[in-house]
Amino acid sequence: MPHITLGNDLPGISGLLQYRPETGRPLSALAETLLRAPNTLSPGERELIAAYVSSRNNCTFCAGSHSASAAAQLPEGMPLVDQVRADLEQADVSAKLKALLRIAGQVQLGGQEVMAAYVAAARAAGASDVEIHDTVLIAAAFCMFNRYVDGLDTIEPDDRESYGETAKMIVSHGYLAAAP
Amino acid sequence: MPHITLGNDLPGISGLLQYRPETGRPLSALAETLLRAPNTLSPGERELIAAYVSSRNNCTFCAGSHSASAAAQLPEGMPLVDQVRADLEQADVSAKLKALLRIAGQVQLGGQEVMAAYVAAARAAGASDVEIHDTVLIAAAFCMFNRYVDGLDTIEPDDRESYGETAKMIVSHGYLAAAP
Repeated sequence: MPHITLGNDLPGISGLLQYRPETGRPLSALAETLLRAPNTLSPGERELIAAYVSSRNNCTFCAGSHSASAAAQLPEGMPLVDQVRADLEQADVSAKLKALLRIAGQVQLGGQEVMAAYVAAARAAGASDVEIHDTVLIAAAFCMFNRYVDGLDTIEPDDRESYGETAKMIVSHGYLAAAP
Repeated sequence: MPHITLGNDLPGISGLLQYRPETGRPLSALAETLLRAPNTLSPGERELIAAYVSSRNNCTFCAGSHSASAAAQLPEGMPLVDQVRADLEQADVSAKLKALLRIAGQVQLGGQEVMAAYVAAARAAGASDVEIHDTVLIAAAFCMFNRYVDGLDTIEPDDRESYGETAKMIVSHGYLAAAP
């Protein structure tokens, strides 16, 4: 049961966005821009970064929902998402995406952990400045979303099916469609 | 020098907001709502939560700027901000604000660290559900802002005077005035 009375029984961040629309609106706009706006990183790649960070933060709701959204938008589907979450170094992703995921992992540890060598490696693998920027901000944003969702102890479904259903809605309609 | 070429020499998050206005706009809107919109927690109290979390994350720019904004809006000024950052348990703040700052400190550690007892203690000290919600979200948001600012190695002034000047602008005009 959530730490505060939300007045709704929506799971995870959905219940929080509806509880407090004043903050829900900029949070939804941020998610839409980071994960779905036009970008040289595909929506599936950006959702994978979100899923990876959420998994490292042990946030069941966010890891479940963004893994489902990544799987729905990546040709390799859930097996690749599971592989990245279980062992990034062995995962079958491009050198550029692996270097960006390593940056995201450092952001999860703390801002000062993104040493210049990680950035240089991403650039050497073909990442642009905007892609490096967006990776850092997506990873940082999920350090917020994860803490928000778990810090208020929101409801977290434990079956993959319900996350998959929500992911279908997100892929079709985006993060603003459900915004308060 | 920042990890990426920002095309401006603005310090901290200011340089990032200008570099990428697409994400700068929702981030500025979030900061304005969290720290300055009408609320039973004063702007000074909310800036103090932001400064406390930023200090725990060792983010020089965010700790400097939000300490200055808190000091400018709290009757006790910078001595109280310094005291909270140095030793919260001994700091001369109300029981309610101390309980909320303890929650913020737990959020900084991780979302799962906000155990029910911290929430119950804040409620017993008079905190409302919305105040508990906003404290968790402010703390979570600064775990994002701190990682964003440090993860891209932005410019951080090391003198209190420059943070004080910026704080005067923020107190007068808010976070949207400088938004891209």
